[in-house]
Amino acid sequence: MSREFTHFDESGRARMVNVGEKKSTSRTAIARGAIYMNEETFTKIKNNEMSKGDVLGVAQVAGITGAKKAWDIIPMCHPLFLSGINISFKFCENNCKIEIESTVSIDSKTGVEMEALTAVSTAALTIYDMCKAVDKSMQIGEIRLVKKTGGLSGDVINE
Amino acid sequence: MSREFTHFDESGRARMVNVGEKKSTSRTAIARGAIYMNEETFTKIKNNEMSKGDVLGVAQVAGITGAKKAWDIIPMCHPLFLSGINISFKFCENNCKIEIESTVSIDSKTGVEMEALTAVSTAALTIYDMCKAVDKSMQIGEIRLVKKTGGLSGDVINE
Amino acid sequence: MSREFTHFDESGRARMVNVGEKKSTSRTAIARGAIYMNEETFTKIKNNEMSKGDVLGVAQVAGITGAKKAWDIIPMCHPLFLSGINISFKFCENNCKIEIESTVSIDSKTGVEMEALTAVSTAALTIYDMCKAVDKSMQIGEIRLVKKTGGLSGDVINE
Amino acid sequence: MSREFTHFDESGRARMVNVGEKKSTSRTAIARGAIYMNEETFTKIKNNEMSKGDVLGVAQVAGITGAKKAWDIIPMCHPLFLSGINISFKFCENNCKIEIESTVSIDSKTGVEMEALTAVSTAALTIYDMCKAVDKSMQIGEIRLVKKTGGLSGDVINE
Amino acid sequence: MSREFTHFDESGRARMVNVGEKKSTSRTAIARGAIYMNEETFTKIKNNEMSKGDVLGVAQVAGITGAKKAWDIIPMCHPLFLSGINISFKFCENNCKIEIESTVSIDSKTGVEMEALTAVSTAALTIYDMCKAVDKSMQIGEIRLVKKTGGLSGDVINE
Amino acid sequence: MSREFTHFDESGRARMVNVGEKKSTSRTAIARGAIYMNEETFTKIKNNEMSKGDVLGVAQVAGITGAKKAWDIIPMCHPLFLSGINISFKFCENNCKIEIESTVSIDSKTGVEMEALTAVSTAALTIYDMCKAVDKSMQIGEIRLVKKTGGLSGDVINE
Repeated sequence: MSREFTHFDESGRARMVNVGEKKSTSRTAIARGAIYMNEETFTKIKNNEMSKGDVLGVAQVAGITGAKKAWDIIPMCHPLFLSGINISFKFCENNCKIEIESTVSIDSKTGVEMEALTAVSTAALTIYDMCKAVDKSMQIGEIRLVKKTGGLSGDVINE
Repeated sequence: MSREFTHFDESGRARMVNVGEKKSTSRTAIARGAIYMNEETFTKIKNNEMSKGDVLGVAQVAGITGAKKAWDIIPMCHPLFLSGINISFKFCENNCKIEIESTVSIDSKTGVEMEALTAVSTAALTIYDMCKAVDKSMQIGEIRLVKKTGGLSGDVINE
Repeated sequence: MSREFTHFDESGRARMVNVGEKKSTSRTAIARGAIYMNEETFTKIKNNEMSKGDVLGVAQVAGITGAKKAWDIIPMCHPLFLSGINISFKFCENNCKIEIESTVSIDSKTGVEMEALTAVSTAALTIYDMCKAVDKSMQIGEIRLVKKTGGLSGDVINE
Repeated sequence: MSREFTHFDESGRARMVNVGEKKSTSRTAIARGAIYMNEETFTKIKNNEMSKGDVLGVAQVAGITGAKKAWDIIPMCHPLFLSGINISFKFCENNCKIEIESTVSIDSKTGVEMEALTAVSTAALTIYDMCKAVDKSMQIGEIRLVKKTGGLSGDVINE
Repeated sequence: MSREFTHFDESGRARMVNVGEKKSTSRTAIARGAIYMNEETFTKIKNNEMSKGDVLGVAQVAGITGAKKAWDIIPMCHPLFLSGINISFKFCENNCKIEIESTVSIDSKTGVEMEALTAVSTAALTIYDMCKAVDKSMQIGEIRLVKKTGGLSGDVINE
Repeated sequence: MSREFTHFDESGRARMVNVGEKKSTSRTAIARGAIYMNEETFTKIKNNEMSKGDVLGVAQVAGITGAKKAWDIIPMCHPLFLSGINISFKFCENNCKIEIESTVSIDSKTGVEMEALTAVSTAALTIYDMCKAVDKSMQIGEIRLVKKTGGLSGDVINE
């Protein structure tokens, strides 16, 4: 009756949970996160985006490839055939924050929230990497699952 | 005189910055981050840690291997021979938060803040993955550089 | 009538065998192996396991991630969506040996014995790595398939 | 009516195209490419092939493992369960060229031309690598899709 | 007196050549390659580049990450700490060809021509992947070393 | 005075040991292992080796690439710039065993025994994979360090 961690076997050792019995369904996960920076950096990214030096273009690629590597980065995460990955950015002027949103979809026996979260996290780290020469006090945060549909235990909406 | 993004060439295209001219020095970076969860999950992790079902043990391994993969995850990040990686956790009872700290050291021409930040981010994602069956509203945040020593442009202390 | 190597084409060149025509079935493979060490090391691992310095905890994670990388390590091995991976250890007091057993399951057109064997091999190498400062004469051995079910050519039991 | 790039979302950002709605069919792609070299190198490879020093044997393995890594090398490429991979070589005496052909097959929602092209490209790079000590003016070229069957938009034949 | 393949041991088996005795020097390699396409595709890429849908931006990232993975893709290639990677593109209007040039630099015991060639090859494959929905007859070619400096056997200039 | 596991920090958590203070020296490690099979398989491999279907040729490539991936497979293993890798095989007629020997060399702050052991283990798994259709009772064993030179704690000879 009480929910339990599923990533441990009866002797308490970690395992990759067996999803063989689960039904394959069409699933989607949406995750969000943010990176905070100083005003100078925020403005530079916005300006660069308009010219060709495109911080967010590189972060976009990194987020997509990051989602594909979630199984390699997170030990108990299943290797998956992802159907689609999409990433978008939003500039929040009032607090010099860039918001990152990822949408990952699949037709599978297991959900893709970890892939969506890894996409956001990787995109944020990439923005950090490309701006660290001009700003040494950036912060990445608010990485969370926003929505999850198609799973057997029902949809999850955290918005 | 104004600081510039270094990851773009003169035509505005992204590049991996040439550090060939930089001097090899002994460098260290310390990063920190956190994962927030509900009280049930927080208590379970603490209890599991005392028995053999060890969420943080898996997150520790993931954080270390994550640091080694920063070059693969972050497009403009240099491949590096890391000298040492250490990760520690702190339970913050009052707000059900686990704080993650990584220390990465190297003897090289370039710093290791991205490796330290990737270690923290990967450890947090791994905790998330192992607890998502019991808690669907966790949040990862406050990922930042805390300290950086040995670089040519002087030490950075964000604490 | 005579069984033939399937990993070569008609000109004798290696290939990754085409399994497209095979039927997708639910399959399991169990592999086993062992690592021998001196008494001091054997006792330390056992004691560490009871406290927090957990050699086998790290080996467990390595075994699971190793199974997921079999396709990358073994040239002619198919990339697969593994359903579940489990690893367990047994202390054999009389000869200072730790026995490693892996169980890998999948719903696929091809078996997972290589994944199970790679899991055992990786777990053993990880134990070796973490103990090599105290013991320079360890030996890894007896890596073999113990059981295989669900394949089209019938079950295999080597016990 | 006009065909459009599918790898961009409506805001012009790159994405990994969602193939979730597509039907899973049995698909094959055949790609070809070539490497040109001087006569000395060409003859050495042919001779080595007859003894045990087998440049093409290593290139064969590299081509197969390269196909399996297309998803990791090409940012917008889907991770896939490849059914089979085959590579063959042809010596063209008159212009000291080795022709490389790859055949990749799958049962999936998306085609495998990128896997076939990556196999050819990786095999060619490996031949280059193993011969560069004796020949510094090799050239890789003519990498192209030759045939593609099983896709929803009909077969493609470029021969 | 005659030059020999260095990637084979005395029994004719492949090996990764030992460069331990070689001196560490500052080295650079420049490689070039091209992708041919039909006029429609060529024009679309040029136009997209001016707006935000940036095929070459993604290819640039892929080329840089490809260079970092040369050791993983090419079996006998050494793992290296690359100092810098730069990639540029040139539109050749008269024959609808995009030329790709990579510059890789390092301070090491071995050269980086394979990294430069892999960067070009990966960037070309990425352009192919992103345009294959509109053009099924593209061709990748002319991949070659253009210049190599800093090696112990003297500079190489193929231009 | 008593030797201790070095892969744990003071709180008992695993870490990647800091080797920053160690001196860089020229180091070599030799490892050995074996794979046992039935007589039919043993004879087929020997015969194939004489024709072009070369099981050991593929295993050789796998062993070399395996050594380069030791840092990725073994969690606490340092990423390294390996100088050279060599693998050889010996047919032991009397007990249908193939012996595998690897030699790995480096100029570094840390030894390469794990790389040598991983090379042997990967070569053995590859032989297993390519023969499993004809032999379901093979066994991999006797994987051990044979010799280690150049380390700060003196040479190790286990022969």
